Amino acid sequence: MLDLADMEHLEGRQSILAALKARQRRFEVILTAHGMHTEKIQEVLDLAGELGVPTKSVERRELDALAHGRTHGGLLAVATAKPRLSGNELLKLLDSITGPPLLLLLEGIDDARNLGFTLRSAEALGAHAVLIKKHLWDFDPVEVARPASGAYERMPLVQIEDVGPLLKLQARGLRLYGCIAGARRTIYDRDLTRPAILAIGGEKRGLSGTVRNICDRFVTIPTIAGASSLSLSHSASIVLAEAHRQRRKARMAKEES
Amino acid sequence: MLDLADMEHLEGRQSILAALKARQRRFEVILTAHGMHTEKIQEVLDLAGELGVPTKSVERRELDALAHGRTHGGLLAVATAKPRLSGNELLKLLDSITGPPLLLLLEGIDDARNLGFTLRSAEALGAHAVLIKKHLWDFDPVEVARPASGAYERMPLVQIEDVGPLLKLQARGLRLYGCIAGARRTIYDRDLTRPAILAIGGEKRGLSGTVRNICDRFVTIPTIAGASSLSLSHSASIVLAEAHRQRRKARMAKEES
Repeated sequence: MLDLADMEHLEGRQSILAALKARQRRFEVILTAHGMHTEKIQEVLDLAGELGVPTKSVERRELDALAHGRTHGGLLAVATAKPRLSGNELLKLLDSITGPPLLLLLEGIDDARNLGFTLRSAEALGAHAVLIKKHLWDFDPVEVARPASGAYERMPLVQIEDVGPLLKLQARGLRLYGCIAGARRTIYDRDLTRPAILAIGGEKRGLSGTVRNICDRFVTIPTIAGASSLSLSHSASIVLAEAHRQRRKARMAKEES
Repeated sequence: MLDLADMEHLEGRQSILAALKARQRRFEVILTAHGMHTEKIQEVLDLAGELGVPTKSVERRELDALAHGRTHGGLLAVATAKPRLSGNELLKLLDSITGPPLLLLLEGIDDARNLGFTLRSAEALGAHAVLIKKHLWDFDPVEVARPASGAYERMPLVQIEDVGPLLKLQARGLRLYGCIAGARRTIYDRDLTRPAILAIGGEKRGLSGTVRNICDRFVTIPTIAGASSLSLSHSASIVLAEAHRQRRKARMAKEES
């Protein structure tokens, strides 16, 4: 039986479709607003039928009352929370990856929307999992899922409490790159094609001392003198894009030779 | 005399300091909450005194009532809106720039916070001005200013109604690069060291046909197949970072030779 206390709401066609397809959650029910055009939600209804998830048509104001905002578009699902990967499950995941692993570690992220945007970029730029040193349940999952545009459902998420899992990853050959302001080497001068964890710190405090202490290398994003620092989520997207550029280039060179 | 109807609120130490230093607005008054530690706001008080801006101590609940949220930290200023540059002023600005101009054009941006984060990255990555094809006054300036972390005050903003100003910039030798999904060439295969306008479209519709029609070149950010598209603000940060990387490299090569 499903424990209703652990249930989350998913809102909107895109989030629900992504969650159904990712098959990581268990669905209790999908609610649709009365009078919706069936063709708009047919894909959701079909997939729900296939997976044996019950659907129920309700009054729109009932949906409005359950939903966070007005962006549900007549669709709301009740499902178990997105599962987090344990450290051991992450190691297992790494075994299944072809090519050098790319992980993103976020410290001090305190904004659900920016986390969502970052998960979306992490997926688009080839990260295999995102590690978060923060209680993930501090975030409203609807606020994370909306800007993530499906990536929240698909991207493996690992919540870490201390550096233990990072040390294990390093023992497996992953290099921990700490992004800090003023590092001598830029992201463009480092080889990011090897198995890597890219660590980005929060805007207020940067990376914690505990993480800095175990970093294998430090890197910085070159910026204009006198300007404010980049935001955490923009820093993450720029470093991930550079890792993706280097890896893509290396792959293309290999294919040509 | 200042027209109070055109007045905006600025909230928090950082926004107010940035606005005072940028000297683009006229200040009516700066309000401070009773019982604030003077050393925390001394720099604001000193600068206000220097510029002849009156300051007034008020009850904290009076500030709370005027402010948008709780992030004002006991400081609120009433000032004229940040001025927008006209097309002609932008051309004058370009004359004063040493090195190749770098402009950012944003189309279809509908989120004040993401605009703020983008202005911050635009400044940090060397853009000289940001052009917006949208009524800027649709945005709440406090919501734009907070994530911009001062860059909102400093970055020249141009609001354009049609492609006229873009054609003038092209006539001055600037190339218009349209960022679109599926372009044959990536941002890494294009020379972004020349005078350039980087055009980024909204997430729903991408770049408008009118802008596409006059683009000199198209570029794309390589991403993983099957993932969602990057958000507008992350796309902007990645393209700007690449332009900055290329320009920095060219500058360093020139200095060495």
